[in-house]
Amino acid sequence: MADKSPTEMSKSRFQVILDKCNNFYRSESSASRCAVFCIDDEKVGLIRPEFVVELKKYTDVFLYEEGKGFKREILRVLPDLNTPETRSKQIEHVLQDLRKRNIFCTLRGWRDENYDIKKNYHDKPLMIMERAATPIFGCLNYGVHVNGYFYNESGDMMMWLGQRSPTKATYPNKLDNLCAGGLATGIGIKDNMVKECQEEASISDDILHKLKSVGTVSYCYEDERGILPECQFVYDLELTPDFQPINADGEVGGFHCYPIKKVEELMITDEFKPNCALIILDFLIRHGLVTPENEPFYTSLVEGIHKPLSQYL
Amino acid sequence: MADKSPTEMSKSRFQVILDKCNNFYRSESSASRCAVFCIDDEKVGLIRPEFVVELKKYTDVFLYEEGKGFKREILRVLPDLNTPETRSKQIEHVLQDLRKRNIFCTLRGWRDENYDIKKNYHDKPLMIMERAATPIFGCLNYGVHVNGYFYNESGDMMMWLGQRSPTKATYPNKLDNLCAGGLATGIGIKDNMVKECQEEASISDDILHKLKSVGTVSYCYEDERGILPECQFVYDLELTPDFQPINADGEVGGFHCYPIKKVEELMITDEFKPNCALIILDFLIRHGLVTPENEPFYTSLVEGIHKPLSQYL
Repeated sequence: MADKSPTEMSKSRFQVILDKCNNFYRSESSASRCAVFCIDDEKVGLIRPEFVVELKKYTDVFLYEEGKGFKREILRVLPDLNTPETRSKQIEHVLQDLRKRNIFCTLRGWRDENYDIKKNYHDKPLMIMERAATPIFGCLNYGVHVNGYFYNESGDMMMWLGQRSPTKATYPNKLDNLCAGGLATGIGIKDNMVKECQEEASISDDILHKLKSVGTVSYCYEDERGILPECQFVYDLELTPDFQPINADGEVGGFHCYPIKKVEELMITDEFKPNCALIILDFLIRHGLVTPENEPFYTSLVEGIHKPLSQYL
Repeated sequence: MADKSPTEMSKSRFQVILDKCNNFYRSESSASRCAVFCIDDEKVGLIRPEFVVELKKYTDVFLYEEGKGFKREILRVLPDLNTPETRSKQIEHVLQDLRKRNIFCTLRGWRDENYDIKKNYHDKPLMIMERAATPIFGCLNYGVHVNGYFYNESGDMMMWLGQRSPTKATYPNKLDNLCAGGLATGIGIKDNMVKECQEEASISDDILHKLKSVGTVSYCYEDERGILPECQFVYDLELTPDFQPINADGEVGGFHCYPIKKVEELMITDEFKPNCALIILDFLIRHGLVTPENEPFYTSLVEGIHKPLSQYL
């Protein structure tokens, strides 16, 4: 690719990753047809029309407002449910009913793990919701990802990748970052990341202090589960060549250590969980490996890994 | 600040920087009243209503289309001007006339330096335009900025800042990054950055090879000159403690070297050129100095330094 000028190439070699992670922004997505999900006058999600049809039947929990002119339909949590506790409880009832009726595929992956629902990360939660249900309402999810890397004896950069367990509900067997996990209710970002590092890769305390917070990566995609706007807090972890990750929680099938050039090749294949490839794209940009000189679509890539969290609403 | 919880604080201590650099996104900005500037059916800028009034008089160069319903007004370069050369030449005539009439303040800072006008960075230029004129049309400008830093004998991070010359047309005397400059027509990003490093700080070749490309910072503001959407290619340069910058082109009044904590204090004051403070905010985030733990508005800050380049159109 290096010998092709911008005009000879119609898109970046990494575009395939952005196409997957940001498919909600494509013209053929459900974006224009979605209803807004509102709690307490805050827009906190987008709901596909086929989901709205089912949800609006629960009139003891939701208020449906038809769209007029250029305005979107709104599915609102009844204003009577005026505390996080009552909203969470009533919507939990709806979700358990929907789960029994088995009409939303995402609820087959019920986790018994709650996510905070809020407008901005710094806001107080408006309610909590079962993790598997958030794509139905298109609510923003947060998580943590760790890039584990080291320089070998020759000075070449190597990266550790996890391979997801074949029994994982989502993306079984796919390549993943060294450690990653969703941010559940009641746990801080750094604590969550330390927990994932310990559970997924048995990383000891003397290494964990090297974890470096380096920013966020944000994107929005949709699939059969619904709409998934996500914001990942990213950490870099420079390891020593003798480090060896060992999984402790059964969520990782194995670990691989590759030269960074090999990772660049793998990340654009179907072997990779797409959002983990996006995290590595951010890593390659921050570490001067993908540059304006070797990547004509550099500015578009930086834009694609930093989608504004409010734009999709 | 560290002992305040998110709910006790209404905004980030860095919000003042974002307020300045992204004032075009504020509700009181001219955004909703602007006309779109089109070349060859591509939207490449936004023009304030008071500028449109003057520009549409040049009917041999521009075609004015009234806005209808929810659609914006359009000021289009006449389709007859169907090459970059003819567009550039005809608009240069308009600009020289406007300059003589002395009605657009930005043209008083005429530089005799051209910028490429294009939709995306990877596109071929649709025309070239005098640098000082681009805010009139709200066209995207690109530039390069270098964060120069080192660790002193105690292991503390220190940062070099330039102080702009008192004779600079824009932001005289303000604090700046170690080196920075706009991306003129006909020069590549890295070449431009090397040139700025040599001219502004006399950085020698043996140091320049350490320049590390680390991403972009993008934002959009308006002032008396017009609308300025900008995308800066950012480089980090780790220096040795004995390095001393020396200005060679008269654009820098002097250099200062401060502990990074002192820079954090200075960057929120009026001492700083706002976009240079934004570049340092990105640096602080990437280097793990501003983290989700010490900055409740972390996700908003990351979003504020990565405004989508197309969103403002």
